Amino acid sequence: MKAQEQKPQNYRREQASSAGSQRIASQPVARHGESSLANRPRAKAFDRLIARRILSTLGNPDIRFRLWDGSELQVAGDASSPLLWFRDRRAMYGTLVNPELHFGDLYSEGRIEVEGELQELLEHVYHGIQKRGDPSPVKSWSDRVSRRMKKNTLNRAAENIHHHYDIGNDFYRLWLDAPYMQYTCAYYPDPSMSLEQAQQAKLHHVCRKLQLKPGDSVVEAGCGWGGLARFMAEHYGVTVRAYNISRKQVAFARETARQQDLTGRVEYVLDDYRNISGRYDVFVSVGMLEHVGVEQYAELGRVIGNCLKNPGRGLIHSIGRNRPKPLNAWIEQRIFPGAYPPTLREAAEIFESNGLSVLDIENLRRHYALTLRDWLQRYRGHEAQVREMHDERFVRAWRLYLAGSQAAFSVGELQLFQWVFTQGCNNDIPWSRSYQYPGHDPLSAAG
Amino acid sequence: MKAQEQKPQNYRREQASSAGSQRIASQPVARHGESSLANRPRAKAFDRLIARRILSTLGNPDIRFRLWDGSELQVAGDASSPLLWFRDRRAMYGTLVNPELHFGDLYSEGRIEVEGELQELLEHVYHGIQKRGDPSPVKSWSDRVSRRMKKNTLNRAAENIHHHYDIGNDFYRLWLDAPYMQYTCAYYPDPSMSLEQAQQAKLHHVCRKLQLKPGDSVVEAGCGWGGLARFMAEHYGVTVRAYNISRKQVAFARETARQQDLTGRVEYVLDDYRNISGRYDVFVSVGMLEHVGVEQYAELGRVIGNCLKNPGRGLIHSIGRNRPKPLNAWIEQRIFPGAYPPTLREAAEIFESNGLSVLDIENLRRHYALTLRDWLQRYRGHEAQVREMHDERFVRAWRLYLAGSQAAFSVGELQLFQWVFTQGCNNDIPWSRSYQYPGHDPLSAAG
Repeated sequence: MKAQEQKPQNYRREQASSAGSQRIASQPVARHGESSLANRPRAKAFDRLIARRILSTLGNPDIRFRLWDGSELQVAGDASSPLLWFRDRRAMYGTLVNPELHFGDLYSEGRIEVEGELQELLEHVYHGIQKRGDPSPVKSWSDRVSRRMKKNTLNRAAENIHHHYDIGNDFYRLWLDAPYMQYTCAYYPDPSMSLEQAQQAKLHHVCRKLQLKPGDSVVEAGCGWGGLARFMAEHYGVTVRAYNISRKQVAFARETARQQDLTGRVEYVLDDYRNISGRYDVFVSVGMLEHVGVEQYAELGRVIGNCLKNPGRGLIHSIGRNRPKPLNAWIEQRIFPGAYPPTLREAAEIFESNGLSVLDIENLRRHYALTLRDWLQRYRGHEAQVREMHDERFVRAWRLYLAGSQAAFSVGELQLFQWVFTQGCNNDIPWSRSYQYPGHDPLSAAG
Repeated sequence: MKAQEQKPQNYRREQASSAGSQRIASQPVARHGESSLANRPRAKAFDRLIARRILSTLGNPDIRFRLWDGSELQVAGDASSPLLWFRDRRAMYGTLVNPELHFGDLYSEGRIEVEGELQELLEHVYHGIQKRGDPSPVKSWSDRVSRRMKKNTLNRAAENIHHHYDIGNDFYRLWLDAPYMQYTCAYYPDPSMSLEQAQQAKLHHVCRKLQLKPGDSVVEAGCGWGGLARFMAEHYGVTVRAYNISRKQVAFARETARQQDLTGRVEYVLDDYRNISGRYDVFVSVGMLEHVGVEQYAELGRVIGNCLKNPGRGLIHSIGRNRPKPLNAWIEQRIFPGAYPPTLREAAEIFESNGLSVLDIENLRRHYALTLRDWLQRYRGHEAQVREMHDERFVRAWRLYLAGSQAAFSVGELQLFQWVFTQGCNNDIPWSRSYQYPGHDPLSAAG
């Protein structure tokens, strides 16, 4: 089964079964300019009352609403505020029924449109919700989703990863950096950096934090298209065994390593992190923890503890939260099945129960907002090609996903944590973290 | 009531009631050279069996045992290994009954003696126990202690702090740094630094992490002798309101600030952190969290959230653990009542439930081992003066406490975490942590 061929059909089917209304799914998908306002029924006083109620539930953000008959309403902001357009009556009521899930679906179908910056509109909405506090219905829905996705068995994990990462290497190549294809947060010590510069700065930042030295053996859990493993072998003289359960990614990684004559130094294994074998100086995992269920954290810690020489060192890089909350329901159902960004407390389980000592945690939240800004810009420049590969609904869904993620990192709904740790009692650690910032004289920090 | 006058009596009374045997307490305290080996009964085969059993329970560390009749035994190590001398039969059996608590008491009484470096002997013991894993009896005892000390009410907190910090400013002045009297982990970016240099490097490190700028208002929870508050006002042009419930420390802090003409910029308040009032740009707490019970962490977080302007920033510096475990029972009962070093997971409660976002965590464990090495060296140089202020038992108890703490940090039994956080969604945070390492060019880290 090839995920990228199945995606559009799957997408439509899931929608029909989960959106709560067969009529929403059976209605034809709206196209830009396809329907004229004249054909739409007029919004009634009751509809406008409901629209105001939605704005109020969202904490009255600085956005405008346009209803299907062209009438507009607004509580805060001004005429330059981004506009959210319900293109038919059922789109508004569908949003009311299940805001997180249906908003994403209705936007993807083109029945909700946005004028102005999509990402800006979503930031306003996030700010409004933060100001107002979480409503309990959303929370209880979130809790249900959270419970449902907690069992990442080996098979389930493989399906989940297949859903997202096997969409097609060509698709991701349109908007990720070259040559390392990093589908994780970049690092912008200077925010004017290009995406390419920032991704390579991230790769160096990770390698420096791990204090790689020539000859070290590294094991990587969840290696994406293999860019970090290649980078480590090229620039730090280490050997890497990298695990991933996405077939397309592993095929790409092996082929690229072969072309670059790195075959003896980088090995890609198509297998789950739970099946890691051997012992290594260094463990690294960038962007996998989001796909590891919370109930698997103790096992992940055991795997790390077992595969590290003593004293070994490691780094985990993952999206996180300030407080426990499931991923946005639409993203979790349509884009990233099984994904969950843990809080520091939740992720601490990995280390506490397995004799691992945490040395350093850095929050790179704002760097992910910049990364997503850059991805979104490139993505939008290639939407015509994405439309050819998939369809309009896919184009809009991914646009919303990238813009929504940018907004979530901008407003602090999501965080990005890098954990550096060591095994057992390691006294071979530097006296200051200035090694992460080369060119620095550590003694000048003595004051 | 003055703690330093009451201490020796208290000390003896607690011992008698808790050591589990009236006979141990009623026996005269041994003095160096007071008893000759000739007066001691010979150790029997059974005694030597028990001694071996103790060594085995300790994971057969590289130490020697000498029994009361002068006979020695050893399982690992060589003739240069440090020697532990049970000066009477009951000292050995008392240690067997409750190793953590009675070892400390018996050493303090001089009925257990150490030849060679005390700190080295304790490191060997820690390594042995780590190698072997925690035995369940010690764990269940620890759990009881843990449960017992969990309720830090306002009155209890005041008693606990009084017990330790009101021993006498003159006592601490003998071995802490001048002029800032820092009774917390120093920072040695260069391990050859003096204690004074390292404490001032720590103060700068804290101020830089907080990005203090002139005019900022700072609130400090648990200010010791007021050194950090004075340092911040002197070197960073901020105003500080500092809370502490130790009367002697606050009196000292106020007098020192008055002498240095800092009265308008630093205010010391004799009150509990839970009674902090006002709103501030910055919250800081160095070395207080160890005295805040785990069940109070959510409340501490609320206090921080309420007293910070939005977006405010903060730092907490505290001893911690890699996995949950109460403080050594002897230290908790004799030296630091109510103290508990939390794991990252436990301390995360402060932030998660109160809208605080963690930006940076640094583990300075090895720096505390150096700090304690320096404290112990100065302390030993002033033991004659401590003996005049208190008595021999007090001298030995504090020697053991400092050496044992040095060993615990050296072998990774204890950690030291600095948490940097911000309130709400703060986008005014630097793009790299190089600001913590002045003299550095952040762009050179881009690779």
